[in-house]
Amino acid sequence: MEELARAVADRTQFAADLFAEMEKHTHDGVGITRASYGEGEQKAHDIMAEAARELGLGVAQDPACNSYFTLPGKNRRAPSVLIGSHLDSVAQGGNFDGAAGVVSGLTALAALKDAGITPNVDVTVMGIRAEESAWFGVSYLGSRAALGMLPPGALQAKRSDNGRSLAEHMAELGGDPEALQSGPPILDTSLIRAFLEPHIEQGPVLEERETPIGIVTGIRGNRRLPAARCLGRYAHCGGEPRWNRQDAVIAVSEFVMALDAIWTETEAGGGDFAYTVGKFFTDPQRHAMTIVNGEVQFSLDLRSLDPDFLGEMEDRLEEIARAIAARRGVRFELGNVTKAAPGRMDTIVRNSLWQGVREKGLSAIEIASGAAHDSAAFAAAGVPTSMIFIRNANGSHNPDEAMRIEDFMVATDLLAWQVTRF
Amino acid sequence: MEELARAVADRTQFAADLFAEMEKHTHDGVGITRASYGEGEQKAHDIMAEAARELGLGVAQDPACNSYFTLPGKNRRAPSVLIGSHLDSVAQGGNFDGAAGVVSGLTALAALKDAGITPNVDVTVMGIRAEESAWFGVSYLGSRAALGMLPPGALQAKRSDNGRSLAEHMAELGGDPEALQSGPPILDTSLIRAFLEPHIEQGPVLEERETPIGIVTGIRGNRRLPAARCLGRYAHCGGEPRWNRQDAVIAVSEFVMALDAIWTETEAGGGDFAYTVGKFFTDPQRHAMTIVNGEVQFSLDLRSLDPDFLGEMEDRLEEIARAIAARRGVRFELGNVTKAAPGRMDTIVRNSLWQGVREKGLSAIEIASGAAHDSAAFAAAGVPTSMIFIRNANGSHNPDEAMRIEDFMVATDLLAWQVTRF
Repeated sequence: MEELARAVADRTQFAADLFAEMEKHTHDGVGITRASYGEGEQKAHDIMAEAARELGLGVAQDPACNSYFTLPGKNRRAPSVLIGSHLDSVAQGGNFDGAAGVVSGLTALAALKDAGITPNVDVTVMGIRAEESAWFGVSYLGSRAALGMLPPGALQAKRSDNGRSLAEHMAELGGDPEALQSGPPILDTSLIRAFLEPHIEQGPVLEERETPIGIVTGIRGNRRLPAARCLGRYAHCGGEPRWNRQDAVIAVSEFVMALDAIWTETEAGGGDFAYTVGKFFTDPQRHAMTIVNGEVQFSLDLRSLDPDFLGEMEDRLEEIARAIAARRGVRFELGNVTKAAPGRMDTIVRNSLWQGVREKGLSAIEIASGAAHDSAAFAAAGVPTSMIFIRNANGSHNPDEAMRIEDFMVATDLLAWQVTRF
Repeated sequence: MEELARAVADRTQFAADLFAEMEKHTHDGVGITRASYGEGEQKAHDIMAEAARELGLGVAQDPACNSYFTLPGKNRRAPSVLIGSHLDSVAQGGNFDGAAGVVSGLTALAALKDAGITPNVDVTVMGIRAEESAWFGVSYLGSRAALGMLPPGALQAKRSDNGRSLAEHMAELGGDPEALQSGPPILDTSLIRAFLEPHIEQGPVLEERETPIGIVTGIRGNRRLPAARCLGRYAHCGGEPRWNRQDAVIAVSEFVMALDAIWTETEAGGGDFAYTVGKFFTDPQRHAMTIVNGEVQFSLDLRSLDPDFLGEMEDRLEEIARAIAARRGVRFELGNVTKAAPGRMDTIVRNSLWQGVREKGLSAIEIASGAAHDSAAFAAAGVPTSMIFIRNANGSHNPDEAMRIEDFMVATDLLAWQVTRF
């Protein structure tokens, strides 16, 4: 297999050129903007399709406008391997979030061809549409559309920048939203052997550990409270004794610290948990230095790899709120709770990737994915799914994303090797 | 002294008429509005002056436009007794906050005259200007002007509703702002035997305890942080592991709960403390459900009767902030700290009031004043000062203030009795 590794290494410039080409066409002056079903995303699909054609791969598009670039295998009737990630970005984001997975897939297929290796089964690189929730308010629309798992009403969701619907955007790019609603799923999951997604790490763990890649253990599921409130009673602080206060700020602060205690306790027990209070604000119309606040609005995002833990947390949130409410004379309205199940990574594929790491003498660590990815949709659909994270400085969703091509090539080397194992 | 008590009781209608007259002229359709140095406040002074003239009292105005209504005593050269409170109100406030003290004083003097009692020393009712900070951003301007204790720049302070300066407003009403700046203090504190201020309670304590009046033990001083900040680092919550977070929301929540623990601990030790977080908000431009917040702005109001405790709290705030900052990787900028010393109530006068309560068989409790009053300015100037709180439902600074005339007359009965003790 040293031949394949050499062939991968020889495609370093090919990969770098694809990244440069995408950056050239989708940089808006501040950062990379590839709106879901927008001009920048389409340009990225065009660039990838052109490269695929030059490599002699099969090129196709589905009714949701996802792209497919296929290298035929020895047994064309066997379930195929999918390698994929998304080609959209947030507004003024970076060049690598999403796109790295597609470039990695194409580079691996190029190297297989260069080395004269025909895989046992078809290997398809999927350029996925609309993963970022920033545009339509819903995550991984492209992969869910392909899997027949679009949430109700998604086709009518409006894009945040222009107010036009997902269905309109699809149709405009040659897609067929009708078929998504009435037809069978585009992808038959029984015909997918595995879904593999290389993706930049969005956090600092690999950078901190000085490790080029991470093998993902799972994608955290979540419970989200987008619009929680605590209602107390406004009062002038001077005249209001403690026993008569119904102070929403202290109540929500106590709520926040109760979750912090659960985080510490869960970590100590080896469990997986994270929470974020993304919003916490007193009413700008009524708050003042000497006013006891009668209302605080806040949001909450709870994440864990453990679906049972997330289920239990729903009850615990209610319990904590009730206890604080009783003690402090306030009322919590936790509001709507949205749920996303954790994305399980396939153990067999994961073990195989670790075998590759060992055989090749690579440096890698195990890492959980805090953020959701297209992989979560494939895992939810029952497809054996695996992710490889690539070291990336400065976080993602910003113009300062900084993935090094050397790290990217380590992931691609492992990916190409893995493809030959099916 | 039963004669005096009867004379006070016979003046119930006199007092009720004064309140009704003020309400008639200063109700704006929603609540009472008597802007500091504005039309409504001036009308209240006019109504009080007319009543004082009808009672045959001396009527005067000082360069700050405070009103003085004097009943001569037997010894006109001895230090005199001042009874006073303010005649302004917040916008759309109630009829009793402030005005009750002036009406109570006039009613007591009327009863003394009715009963044919000449007090040992001159007794002067002072109608004070501009106590409410809502108008010029500074508290008790009228009393501080009379005591020669105006803060620097106060005469140039702009009224919140019209932007015109305090000096302009004074001059317009016949005052002399020049004299306040260059001349000696209007009031010579060595010639004031005591300052007595009846005032409605702004909290619910007397209502809750079913007691008509409270003898004030002291006026809480404060430390205020109008614009504190905690700076962390914005991050996408999905990719950011706990050890790398610099979460301003959790840090400030912990800060809030640390103060709550101090409150519990201080109360348990018999000490006096209250704190209020009047503002607590993430940046509306940057916060979002899945963002770790890099900034929280908040305000803080700490109150206590104990000046040493307040001094110590300044240090403790810094310590708490430092400890949380070290633990959570954030930075606190506590900002400007404003200070107001606690207002000491005179023990001799207070004991005398309690003697009156006992002799008359009244029902009263000891009560601390959480809010500041003109009395705080007199106490700070070294004048023996005492306050009587009057039961009041629904808090103050709103149109629903609900002082009952019976409770008001209990306070006035005690006040008239106290006047004869000097």
